[in-house]
Amino acid sequence: MLRGTPSRLRASVASLLRTAEKDIVSSREKEDERKGFTMIPTVEWKDGVVRLLDQSQLPGRVEILECQDVESVVSAIRSLQVRGAPAIGVTAAMGIALGAQSILENEVSAFTRKILAVCRQFADTRPTAVNLFWAIERMKGVLQDGCHCTVPEVQSRLLQEALAIQREDVARCKTIGRRGATLIKDGYRILTHCNAGALATAGYGTALGVVRAAWEQGKKIHVFADETRPVLQGARLTAWELMEDGIPVTLITDNVAGTVMRQGKIDLCVVGADRIAANGDVANKIGTYSVAVLAKAHGIPFYVAAPSSTIDVATPDGSAIPIEERSGDEVTALNGGPWIAPKGVAVFNPAFDVTPAEYVTGIITEEGVLSPGQIAEKFQS
Amino acid sequence: MLRGTPSRLRASVASLLRTAEKDIVSSREKEDERKGFTMIPTVEWKDGVVRLLDQSQLPGRVEILECQDVESVVSAIRSLQVRGAPAIGVTAAMGIALGAQSILENEVSAFTRKILAVCRQFADTRPTAVNLFWAIERMKGVLQDGCHCTVPEVQSRLLQEALAIQREDVARCKTIGRRGATLIKDGYRILTHCNAGALATAGYGTALGVVRAAWEQGKKIHVFADETRPVLQGARLTAWELMEDGIPVTLITDNVAGTVMRQGKIDLCVVGADRIAANGDVANKIGTYSVAVLAKAHGIPFYVAAPSSTIDVATPDGSAIPIEERSGDEVTALNGGPWIAPKGVAVFNPAFDVTPAEYVTGIITEEGVLSPGQIAEKFQS
Repeated sequence: MLRGTPSRLRASVASLLRTAEKDIVSSREKEDERKGFTMIPTVEWKDGVVRLLDQSQLPGRVEILECQDVESVVSAIRSLQVRGAPAIGVTAAMGIALGAQSILENEVSAFTRKILAVCRQFADTRPTAVNLFWAIERMKGVLQDGCHCTVPEVQSRLLQEALAIQREDVARCKTIGRRGATLIKDGYRILTHCNAGALATAGYGTALGVVRAAWEQGKKIHVFADETRPVLQGARLTAWELMEDGIPVTLITDNVAGTVMRQGKIDLCVVGADRIAANGDVANKIGTYSVAVLAKAHGIPFYVAAPSSTIDVATPDGSAIPIEERSGDEVTALNGGPWIAPKGVAVFNPAFDVTPAEYVTGIITEEGVLSPGQIAEKFQS
Repeated sequence: MLRGTPSRLRASVASLLRTAEKDIVSSREKEDERKGFTMIPTVEWKDGVVRLLDQSQLPGRVEILECQDVESVVSAIRSLQVRGAPAIGVTAAMGIALGAQSILENEVSAFTRKILAVCRQFADTRPTAVNLFWAIERMKGVLQDGCHCTVPEVQSRLLQEALAIQREDVARCKTIGRRGATLIKDGYRILTHCNAGALATAGYGTALGVVRAAWEQGKKIHVFADETRPVLQGARLTAWELMEDGIPVTLITDNVAGTVMRQGKIDLCVVGADRIAANGDVANKIGTYSVAVLAKAHGIPFYVAAPSSTIDVATPDGSAIPIEERSGDEVTALNGGPWIAPKGVAVFNPAFDVTPAEYVTGIITEEGVLSPGQIAEKFQS
């Protein structure tokens, strides 16, 4: 336990954090170098600031947001500058750790009240991805673990927890990749929807983690990336990160998925998830359901790759998953460009859909490849 | 038969054409007024010029292209300034009539050689929609009907034929609408893909002709319009023309079609066609196939509305239909806006797909609503 005046304590904690942070960042960098990845981190903690790769600017510009306060992290999540269920979870954890540092209270009880309010701010950002709530709960767990810490110690522990969540997310993705790669044969043509890549996670990716692992094993694969309207995560992010890694990719509009399947060009589909219910129903980016129905009609296996933090056994089935509906502007004025529809047109813009378990061949988690029916038993809390 | 020197003949023919044209245009305008339509014509002949509504500018700007030569009509078809299978047919016919007027030959045989070259120019514009080739064949029929006409008379007859094709297209669409409307019940929610509306034809539309006719019968209907990537005919054209007519419409991304079906929000799908093979397979705008598969998975009837000029009994099935592949720029740089994908990304951009007959509930033609299996017998030439 550290002792001293609050200001001296804070200085000590800051120094302690810098060391911890350096170790984690440098060990991650070393591992990435060894593996041959050069991907810019989606989210990182650096010198008391949450640094986010602004995904809304990709692929045109690589811009880093330096978030110095909770509000800017909250805003980045809301405006999709950072997106992807696991990445949102990690970012919220970092945002809470950042918020913790700015709370000037000596009493732990007063500090706790304030940091719980910060947690609520993050819980209000987006409703569908359960990783967000999972990460918030983990951060709250630090407050409730019964230690008799000082405020600076709790602040330090919150940051440690956020960095652990980040570290574990990368590790989980790599395990998912390794386990999923057993499903990928040499020469496979793989269709994916949205971006469940390094950019959607703390690194490596879930669906694209499977692709990366197969590629690293020397399998000659080819990815067909749905562009994924309205926000174009497939065109802007999946195509970009696969090209950065030299993995062959062909971009298609979402409309072409059925055609490439019918032409026999697809061997397997793999997508990410925002929430998996106890019965194996999967909420994921809008359009996933259509891909799954098409895959079934063509006898093509349809896999979902996600870490256990995406599994929500408290939600019995897909009908209980809240589906975020976003502004029609995402549809009518594309990517900040000119209007592409008549002014005043009514728009229905759900950000996600639910793919019933019956369409899901398997769920690739860090615990192994499970059938949807095995989810409840395996992850029962 | 008109007689005189070439220049005097041309003057007489010009006067004759102006009269014929005035009659046709004014009778069409009167009919439209009576029906309450105010839609700007997709294509029209006026004072020796082919006037085209530039659909690539909609809905932002209503701009008329004044085409004074063949090249500008050819270019308008290629660049999708005019699009939609029936509209392409009518436009090509008008373009051929326009080309005919500029051929300065006294000998019919020399004139015929030149006008056949113009026909080939139009045949080379786009490969999939059969209405184009059908219209060209009709125009060629004028040349081959055995009359011993002078060049000015052939020129006049070619224009008459083009105007007849235009007139008949509108009439066919209205019949299609009336016949199709029997399938639409009060309160129906109808999903459509791309634009098979007034803008895709000489007027009134095919799929949207069915919608219009049902609406005119007082049925309270609601249309869900797929935006239809990559060229966004659904967002730019279908939403626009339905709003102009006051018919309720909700715009969705193509990705949402499966979700609205699963939510029980769709009672019937109706789309247009670019070519219908003898076995009832249907080529239509890319994405139609996905809509059909989704409709079948949800037990929703899937109809195709098209004039008989879209039916090609010489093509045995969908595999023999040439599918146009267009530039990847349509996908990567949207609607003239900024790039939305990494530079240099590989793109697969087929403009059409084939929906096998088994997914088609019925084909709505001016001859009635037919099952795909009835097509060959009904339209055998």
